[in-house]
Amino acid sequence: MTITIAVDCMGGDHGPSVTVPAVLDFLGRDAGCSAVLVGREAALRPLLRGAERLGQRLRIQNASEVVEMHDAISIALRNKKDSSMRVAVDLVKDGRADAALSAGNTGALMAISRFVLKTLRGIDRPAIASILPTVDGHCYVLDLGANVDCTAEHLCQFGIMGTLLVAALEHRDRPSVGLLNIGEEDIKGNEVVKQAAELLKESGLNFLGNVEGDQIWRGAADVVVCDGFVGNVLLKSSEGLAQMIASGLKEEFSRNLLTKLSALMALPVIRAFKRRFDHRAYNGASLLGLKGIVFKSHGSADAYAFRCALERAAEAARERLPEKIAARMAILHPDNGIPVAA
Amino acid sequence: MTITIAVDCMGGDHGPSVTVPAVLDFLGRDAGCSAVLVGREAALRPLLRGAERLGQRLRIQNASEVVEMHDAISIALRNKKDSSMRVAVDLVKDGRADAALSAGNTGALMAISRFVLKTLRGIDRPAIASILPTVDGHCYVLDLGANVDCTAEHLCQFGIMGTLLVAALEHRDRPSVGLLNIGEEDIKGNEVVKQAAELLKESGLNFLGNVEGDQIWRGAADVVVCDGFVGNVLLKSSEGLAQMIASGLKEEFSRNLLTKLSALMALPVIRAFKRRFDHRAYNGASLLGLKGIVFKSHGSADAYAFRCALERAAEAARERLPEKIAARMAILHPDNGIPVAA
Repeated sequence: MTITIAVDCMGGDHGPSVTVPAVLDFLGRDAGCSAVLVGREAALRPLLRGAERLGQRLRIQNASEVVEMHDAISIALRNKKDSSMRVAVDLVKDGRADAALSAGNTGALMAISRFVLKTLRGIDRPAIASILPTVDGHCYVLDLGANVDCTAEHLCQFGIMGTLLVAALEHRDRPSVGLLNIGEEDIKGNEVVKQAAELLKESGLNFLGNVEGDQIWRGAADVVVCDGFVGNVLLKSSEGLAQMIASGLKEEFSRNLLTKLSALMALPVIRAFKRRFDHRAYNGASLLGLKGIVFKSHGSADAYAFRCALERAAEAARERLPEKIAARMAILHPDNGIPVAA
Repeated sequence: MTITIAVDCMGGDHGPSVTVPAVLDFLGRDAGCSAVLVGREAALRPLLRGAERLGQRLRIQNASEVVEMHDAISIALRNKKDSSMRVAVDLVKDGRADAALSAGNTGALMAISRFVLKTLRGIDRPAIASILPTVDGHCYVLDLGANVDCTAEHLCQFGIMGTLLVAALEHRDRPSVGLLNIGEEDIKGNEVVKQAAELLKESGLNFLGNVEGDQIWRGAADVVVCDGFVGNVLLKSSEGLAQMIASGLKEEFSRNLLTKLSALMALPVIRAFKRRFDHRAYNGASLLGLKGIVFKSHGSADAYAFRCALERAAEAARERLPEKIAARMAILHPDNGIPVAA
């Protein structure tokens, strides 16, 4: 079975100059995939020289509009029905693609995906799951901003979706789930989190209990669940802190001739360190809980990072992630209309 | 006027071996201060050799019990009435000290302080304010864990208390206040945060609007306001991330003879970098909104870090911080019983 990815080629900081080469690289490595490049044909065509060898595995779908980063969600949703983002998601809806990927405006992508694809039965709110590096690997955190006011039930659903995401992308049987909280003891945390812990305990997931902010980086759990407000603050503050540390180090190393010399000496060390915590390798956030697969690339992604996101989207499609989430929700709520054996 | 600090000498990871030398160093540098060492006299006395020159500026107040890090708050509050932490706060209540400092259990310290000192009129919830380094200085963030379920009014009060804290410790006229949120636009965020923004706009503070997680580190505001759940996750995840980066760098530098040599070459750079973001210099979180001054030192503080916290507590006492907060709250709510001119 060939997996087809609909790629919004116009999104992100760099647009087609990054997305198109990334797709070509991706298709060259994975013969089981094909791609539909969505965007302004005139902007895409010149970047395809030498891609003839891919034959039917590479197609262009013209889309006349682009959702800009500053566009209000309502504009993106109602007034730009021929945007590359919208057309890419439409292709998933119509069954002409198995997954969509965009590096554009996150809020617009979630709103369009929700509107076009609809939410899976049993899921109240779709969520955004992203990957963070840890001391000895990485972990998945959700929600990262789609839901700012969450109930305990939402958090429990995030745990289920996160578990199935990790199972699909990492081929793991029972990934561990932690609930982001401000203390390890059961009594700590706000009311919603306390109730969510009870639900998660009864969910049948491999639930470890509470995880504190610092334990995320120690790899305490494969999946960390939190509401979108906390998750967004966590993600952005971590990015900001890492940037501050990196630029601070760079400044100190460029202070004078001697420090510049020591930087030269330390170059192999700095490169090895960068490889280890290379955030580009973690690119590709998953919009979970929809009747279709949508992935979000970081806006600043380069071709390597964008390719990593393409690989994740393809793997989720191969593993039929939405069907698995739907099946799990049907078992949890057999009374909601889907037969358990469906 | 001499400022007297009541020091819980038994708290923290290292107890008297750190707290007592720190107090001696502090008193040697600030002739305007005196200290009461609170704890087991037998443990403190041997550390005071050579301190006779301080005369009446240094006293010991025996306290037979110690609040342990794992003690439940209820145990600390009800069953350990002769703990060093409790006795230090009692000294503030009785007017025999101008401020208390402890490196012990944060939850217990807040509960004891609230019970003994009571909350200022107009303040619904005391908060914990801590200092984080930024690219070009530092900022104050509150609340960091005292309040997990906050209303918009609480967040607005945090803004007022944070403003007066920065005014007192940094001698700044109108420090800027930012509201931690997940987008810069007014429409983003959860309901409580949106309402808090409205209250802060009308508060007369130097309110800048929303601040996102990454902007904290860029020094976007002098005071960043958030609920205690978000603040605690922010603080702990930042500590954890910084540790992961530091230990990752250390590992890469110790990999082989060549990398070790480059580490030796880079030592001045690494030292300069450490000095710049030295978290010890930011030690001393403030418990705000109480009828008295209480500061919290990090549990792992060394003597230098503990001295920094002592200096902050002394400055808050010199500036009569609680009186200033009470006066500001009386202006905001003239109908709550305190005459505006009080």
